[in-house]
Amino acid sequence: MKNAYIVIEGLEGAGKTTAIKTVVETLNQSGIQEITFTREPGGTPLAEKLRELIKQGITGEKVTDKAEVLMLYAARVQLVENVIKPALAAGKWVVGDRHDLSSQAYQGGGRGIDKQLMQSLRDLVLGEFKPALTLYLDLPPELGLQRARARGELDRIEKESLAFFERTRARYLELAAEDETILTIDASQNLEQVQQDIRQTLQQWLTR
Amino acid sequence: MKNAYIVIEGLEGAGKTTAIKTVVETLNQSGIQEITFTREPGGTPLAEKLRELIKQGITGEKVTDKAEVLMLYAARVQLVENVIKPALAAGKWVVGDRHDLSSQAYQGGGRGIDKQLMQSLRDLVLGEFKPALTLYLDLPPELGLQRARARGELDRIEKESLAFFERTRARYLELAAEDETILTIDASQNLEQVQQDIRQTLQQWLTR
Repeated sequence: MKNAYIVIEGLEGAGKTTAIKTVVETLNQSGIQEITFTREPGGTPLAEKLRELIKQGITGEKVTDKAEVLMLYAARVQLVENVIKPALAAGKWVVGDRHDLSSQAYQGGGRGIDKQLMQSLRDLVLGEFKPALTLYLDLPPELGLQRARARGELDRIEKESLAFFERTRARYLELAAEDETILTIDASQNLEQVQQDIRQTLQQWLTR
Repeated sequence: MKNAYIVIEGLEGAGKTTAIKTVVETLNQSGIQEITFTREPGGTPLAEKLRELIKQGITGEKVTDKAEVLMLYAARVQLVENVIKPALAAGKWVVGDRHDLSSQAYQGGGRGIDKQLMQSLRDLVLGEFKPALTLYLDLPPELGLQRARARGELDRIEKESLAFFERTRARYLELAAEDETILTIDASQNLEQVQQDIRQTLQQWLTR
């Protein structure tokens, strides 16, 4: 079983944190112990500085859609080159909380940045690099936002309208349908069922 | 005489600060008083935060060439959308200390990032936007670095090798030859002669 980069994706409140725990347990049960964790945006000192600017913005200045996406890619390329690729080269497994698919969905779908432009940018910055497997936790945005709000204060992006998250979800689903490395989990089910689906999907993938 | 965006470009130590003063005096003498000044990277609160990350880097982490160029473009699009375009729309003249040509020369030439990639990125981010006039102050890098070093401590980019600045200058010259809105000033001459050339070139351009 060759080490690989596995990403968990989904809207706010989809249950990514719990999903990551389930992924790690499942990997451990398959004898995989050495796992590097990443989150995006962030995961390196520079990327975390950029995360702060992206999440909090700047008082009194509009963050343009293009600046947002460029900062996301600056953070991503630091993480990929300085953390993910070296970990994979060292034989480690990498489990990521969000990756490029988030930008395609949130900025390409939610913000409505031209999809061709978004994919050109990805190709320019990342080239052929991509996760071996992405588990996309799908659920209606109303449900996700309800859960996210229950957790506390929302950041700049979490404060977007419901329509924004509907567009984001639509783009997630569109991209999942086009790419066989993206597997969709129904995250609107009860927690136990979601965890069971993740376990089963991952086990099948590991023994594919 | 329609208001416009004029940019001063050149290597470290080429004399951009003095050149800007000369440009402003010449504009004033032509009856132009309302001038907005910009510098890149920077010029908005978010862009200045990015400038700091670009110039100083992060202790213990390599800033990849791609992250550098993405942060430069994030800063640039904030400046263009939030400062330069509104100033031009309000009928003001804008005088800039560096703009896109610096990225094409330093990152495309100096760092050797693929020139096609650099131009695609510019097209994706800036579209048709460009300065009406760029004055490129050309001089041998040895001379410029001598002057820059005399001014004090060098930042992350100013510490690059002489070969880096030779490649940067070569790309500046190549792009100036291709684009009639870029006018080259011989900045290796004595200060008085350089100022006179700038004055003359700008006056001719204003009455073109």
